[in-house]
Amino acid sequence: MARPGGRSARVQEAVHAAVHELDAEVGRDALTVPLIAARAGVTPSTVYRRWGDLRELLSDVAVEHLRPETDPEDHGELVADLTAWAEQFLDEMASPPGRAYIRDALLGDPDGDNAGQCSAYAAEQIDVILRRATARGEQQQPDVETVIDHVVAPMMYRILFRPGALDAAYARRLVADCLERGRR
Amino acid sequence: MARPGGRSARVQEAVHAAVHELDAEVGRDALTVPLIAARAGVTPSTVYRRWGDLRELLSDVAVEHLRPETDPEDHGELVADLTAWAEQFLDEMASPPGRAYIRDALLGDPDGDNAGQCSAYAAEQIDVILRRATARGEQQQPDVETVIDHVVAPMMYRILFRPGALDAAYARRLVADCLERGRR
Repeated sequence: MARPGGRSARVQEAVHAAVHELDAEVGRDALTVPLIAARAGVTPSTVYRRWGDLRELLSDVAVEHLRPETDPEDHGELVADLTAWAEQFLDEMASPPGRAYIRDALLGDPDGDNAGQCSAYAAEQIDVILRRATARGEQQQPDVETVIDHVVAPMMYRILFRPGALDAAYARRLVADCLERGRR
Repeated sequence: MARPGGRSARVQEAVHAAVHELDAEVGRDALTVPLIAARAGVTPSTVYRRWGDLRELLSDVAVEHLRPETDPEDHGELVADLTAWAEQFLDEMASPPGRAYIRDALLGDPDGDNAGQCSAYAAEQIDVILRRATARGEQQQPDVETVIDHVVAPMMYRILFRPGALDAAYARRLVADCLERGRR
């Protein structure tokens, strides 16, 4: 007899994989719960019971995509670590797939749990960078919430609300300003 | 013969009014295009032709709600004007109706035009405040984009992505920090 947790994890994996495959094959707008269920080898009612509807399923898949796979790179210095992280974050989030995942994560998530999870991922990465700086003996760092407010928030706000060019120079300027604040 | 512009404006007004009335009467989740069209005295196909679908219609209605009705209050000094504006903005946007409008504006708006319009409204209000400060002879103001990045963006990011308390003290602190940056 399979443990419920084991089956549950396998169902989730199969359904997420089916979404990825079908997204690539037939495109996002053609996805339906019956199509996804058939590819995953489960019944549509399994999907409805677990995820509610297609939008909530896509929100979960998006959050999974937005989860960082590794710790931020270590460049030996706070300013270099935070700059590299912010440049990569902006590059990923402002890309067409990144924008689609952010929208999906927000839209199928009336309670805000998935959006909160996305923000928690960013906060965890920043926390790793700041702890590393502390371990090196670097002084006068900003705290995680200050980096969220003045580096992450402006990038995400502009991606969602403010059309216009977003380049690596913008990310670098936000980081430089944020660290300068911390030094005052 | 009615001018097309005149008829078009009347249709928009009737449909928006129907959304407001039905939202109050039957609740948001029970809204449908046929229900809204019947209340507005137009055919469903008129609604579909003009707005595409319910989600896009709700996005337009949300943007209309998020449009400021008056210029920001004049308190005689930049710091007071910007603080009062930020406190009111946070209060409105973080309220349950405000959050619902922000979500609607984003969700039915794949091109980002409506989200861009919301941001343009905020930028226009900030611009009025900064021009007033210039006219008074106040020096060393931040520019509009800096206020967007460091006052508006953190508030909107936390409303959408980061659960937790958002109070007037948070808005005041963002404004004070932003003006201090401008003074350096």
